[in-house]
Amino acid sequence: MSHELTAEAISKRVGGRIEGVADVTVSGVASLREATPEDVSFLGNEKYEAQVLPSKAGVVLVPETFSSPPPSGRTWIHCADPSAAFSELVEFFAPPPVDCSPGIHPTAVVADSTAIPESVHIGPCAVIEPGVRLGEDTVVAAGCYVGHDTHLGRECKLYPNVTIRERCRLGDRVVVHSGTVIGSDGFGYLPGEEGHTKIPQLGFVQIDSDVEIGAQVAVDRARFGRTWIKRGAKIDNLVQIAHNVIVGENCFLVAQMGIAGSSELGRGVIAAGQVGISGHLKVGDRATLMGQAGISKDVPPDAVYFGTPAMDRKEFARQMLAVRQVPGLRARVKELEQIVERLREKLE
Amino acid sequence: MSHELTAEAISKRVGGRIEGVADVTVSGVASLREATPEDVSFLGNEKYEAQVLPSKAGVVLVPETFSSPPPSGRTWIHCADPSAAFSELVEFFAPPPVDCSPGIHPTAVVADSTAIPESVHIGPCAVIEPGVRLGEDTVVAAGCYVGHDTHLGRECKLYPNVTIRERCRLGDRVVVHSGTVIGSDGFGYLPGEEGHTKIPQLGFVQIDSDVEIGAQVAVDRARFGRTWIKRGAKIDNLVQIAHNVIVGENCFLVAQMGIAGSSELGRGVIAAGQVGISGHLKVGDRATLMGQAGISKDVPPDAVYFGTPAMDRKEFARQMLAVRQVPGLRARVKELEQIVERLREKLE
Amino acid sequence: MSHELTAEAISKRVGGRIEGVADVTVSGVASLREATPEDVSFLGNEKYEAQVLPSKAGVVLVPETFSSPPPSGRTWIHCADPSAAFSELVEFFAPPPVDCSPGIHPTAVVADSTAIPESVHIGPCAVIEPGVRLGEDTVVAAGCYVGHDTHLGRECKLYPNVTIRERCRLGDRVVVHSGTVIGSDGFGYLPGEEGHTKIPQLGFVQIDSDVEIGAQVAVDRARFGRTWIKRGAKIDNLVQIAHNVIVGENCFLVAQMGIAGSSELGRGVIAAGQVGISGHLKVGDRATLMGQAGISKDVPPDAVYFGTPAMDRKEFARQMLAVRQVPGLRARVKELEQIVERLREKLE
Repeated sequence: MSHELTAEAISKRVGGRIEGVADVTVSGVASLREATPEDVSFLGNEKYEAQVLPSKAGVVLVPETFSSPPPSGRTWIHCADPSAAFSELVEFFAPPPVDCSPGIHPTAVVADSTAIPESVHIGPCAVIEPGVRLGEDTVVAAGCYVGHDTHLGRECKLYPNVTIRERCRLGDRVVVHSGTVIGSDGFGYLPGEEGHTKIPQLGFVQIDSDVEIGAQVAVDRARFGRTWIKRGAKIDNLVQIAHNVIVGENCFLVAQMGIAGSSELGRGVIAAGQVGISGHLKVGDRATLMGQAGISKDVPPDAVYFGTPAMDRKEFARQMLAVRQVPGLRARVKELEQIVERLREKLE
Repeated sequence: MSHELTAEAISKRVGGRIEGVADVTVSGVASLREATPEDVSFLGNEKYEAQVLPSKAGVVLVPETFSSPPPSGRTWIHCADPSAAFSELVEFFAPPPVDCSPGIHPTAVVADSTAIPESVHIGPCAVIEPGVRLGEDTVVAAGCYVGHDTHLGRECKLYPNVTIRERCRLGDRVVVHSGTVIGSDGFGYLPGEEGHTKIPQLGFVQIDSDVEIGAQVAVDRARFGRTWIKRGAKIDNLVQIAHNVIVGENCFLVAQMGIAGSSELGRGVIAAGQVGISGHLKVGDRATLMGQAGISKDVPPDAVYFGTPAMDRKEFARQMLAVRQVPGLRARVKELEQIVERLREKLE
Repeated sequence: MSHELTAEAISKRVGGRIEGVADVTVSGVASLREATPEDVSFLGNEKYEAQVLPSKAGVVLVPETFSSPPPSGRTWIHCADPSAAFSELVEFFAPPPVDCSPGIHPTAVVADSTAIPESVHIGPCAVIEPGVRLGEDTVVAAGCYVGHDTHLGRECKLYPNVTIRERCRLGDRVVVHSGTVIGSDGFGYLPGEEGHTKIPQLGFVQIDSDVEIGAQVAVDRARFGRTWIKRGAKIDNLVQIAHNVIVGENCFLVAQMGIAGSSELGRGVIAAGQVGISGHLKVGDRATLMGQAGISKDVPPDAVYFGTPAMDRKEFARQMLAVRQVPGLRARVKELEQIVERLREKLE
């Protein structure tokens, strides 16, 4: 039961303007390079401009300002935001989402099923310990573990094989992808010559509403009190959040970055891939930490930091430039030495 | 059934000295910033000194030398080690630990349950393959997999969804957090133009007593022989331990660091977050590898290394300084050039 | 029922030449340092040459050119490729592989078992959703999840606790190690002041034949179309592959490296541990990215890149050298200043 759309229909949907053949029909979406004449594609990033003309796509969404006309037999649709328009079409052509209808799978192990709302989906082999609360329409997929006295709000979604340990608190519409672990012990020991003594990790993890957490993430429970991820933060795969960290509202934490214990990120911080943040630091609101930056001191609001140890991006650029100037500087010093030597000979 | 403690009682417990109101009662623990008048808090790191006076905590554990008196109506308890003292109180007020009473859950799949001591806990949907040995009081939580002929000692704890493959050897009191994989194949291939040929990974992983391993860690089995984590080592989340690595006694390996094949760490090495250690290297006893260091040659005992490629911390600091000196040096060379030019003009 | 081999038999197997005692028998393999007189060992890397003589190994495979004679009572076998020869012996002495005989474990949850070939192994508590296709002799071990309409070819192996989400396509002989997640949502949002809007991730992941993927890896599904790992690529543990990435044939991706969205690697690229590749980049065929490199622009074929931001290795070496020259340069400038000052005094 595949969907189809004419160029006309697409143009209406996205508020665009057709250039080229109008009576063409497409039945799928694809990138410029992979598209066939049955696909609609788009130019969302000027880096790919050179791919538009060679593309086989029947229809291409292009920016309003795109000036090359379509080759014979093909179609452009000019629109204000090709990327957003394309997203809509992707959804139109998408296969139906996976069914997570309400109910508890017979192989799930639910300590107290009377406490589970009827609208909740619990998948095969999921384990729900005593004291767990799940809000309406929440989905706990196959193989998930939800520990003692942990609470999830409404419309949360745990993808297969997520682990959430005891006493955690998740708000509404929290999404957690497969493999992620929430509430593991923080890394705390009293070092000793004869062996290190574990500092008990007795707090919990609080994740506010509308947070999404990628796959393979680790969020440690607090030593005491809470590790806290605030509303709307988005966390990519393989990220490390240590004990007692606070992640501010609407932060973006990109893959493989990590935050050491007790550090605190303000609102809207962007930490790019593989960034590392040392412990007990503050990163100000809206700061941007560039890829692989190693943050070893507080970062002011709105700053852009780069390098290890990280510094303001402009200072980093100055230092890169300084290094590249050394060979020229050596040549100049050598020349000076020769000139000065000649002057000295003349003088003596 | 919540616990309560008076300032008097706390002071006795921690061997401290009360300053301020003595007859106050608290019923919980919290950080200085999150505390209410019903909480006891602490000053464990001088970075947080400015938070003591504004805190709402009823009682604050402070160092013996802390000199500001408590505001009216509040209480300090001076003690030798506020952090250690606070840890004790955290445990006092902690909720009871999760119950892992002996027994095999009916949904667990245990190849040979007659070989399992009665004191062992095996959680729902855990899988125990043939030939597995588990010591007294060991806990294998929900969803764990323990492969063929793997042996665990006494009082080990595998948190939910841990995977341990075949023929591994774990000592006593080994703790492994959720999501971690032990005994996956090492990454070894004979490269070829037409495709790479896998080198079979036929060894195992040995983890000695009192090791703790965080969440989402990967420890590969040896190509032959063993990958070996020695007694008392503590490993944080998302760490990579490649095949045939040896981690010395009481090492600390912080989150997201990784060790390539056949490298060997001595006793008490500290590797900070996101450190990378190349293959076939030796890191000497008690060496410290600072955050994100990239270790590409052997590290002597007691050294402190930083940077990529890593070098002695002092050498790294000298290089950082050198880079910052370049602009000043350029200015001096320019000035010299002008002076020399004037001298030359005078002389000619 | 342990295996034994005489030095004579080993020499024949590996096409080698015996030096020293010929009538010795070994029953296992070990590294030079861990070997006993009952073991055969090998010298595969000249770094370990100094370990050959002190080793207790009964038999050591050495290169043809190895010149020190064996101590009294011990045996060398000279051969062309000691490492490859040793690999053969490792396999000879290896314990039998874990049994994965055909059949569906009664605790597995298989939506439509009539569609599963009889040669397939499905382990305990594995979950196979509707529409899944599995090729002949494929193994899905304990606790794995295979999502709706995902297809696996022949002789694939999913180790315990792997998660593959809906609509993914895996070729033949694809191996996936424990804990890995394939098909999680890409990290895509439209940023907004009042919260970020999720961009639906409606594509899939395609993994071609003969790919092997380590433990704890995350491979995100495409925003639309596919994230694509091509034939023969080998991926180590804890690697991040973002949405719409293309990994070329026979690439090697070492542990903890990551690739951001829509980047494309050519054939035979080697990315060492902890490398980070930004989004929308191209890395040319056979390029080598050294450990922890941060790739922020396209990399030409056959290039060797290092550093953050990454550059040609030779340029990186030049910069390292330049930094080390600064102190000497400062000394020369200081001396020049003094000479020039004296010249000026003389002149005036």
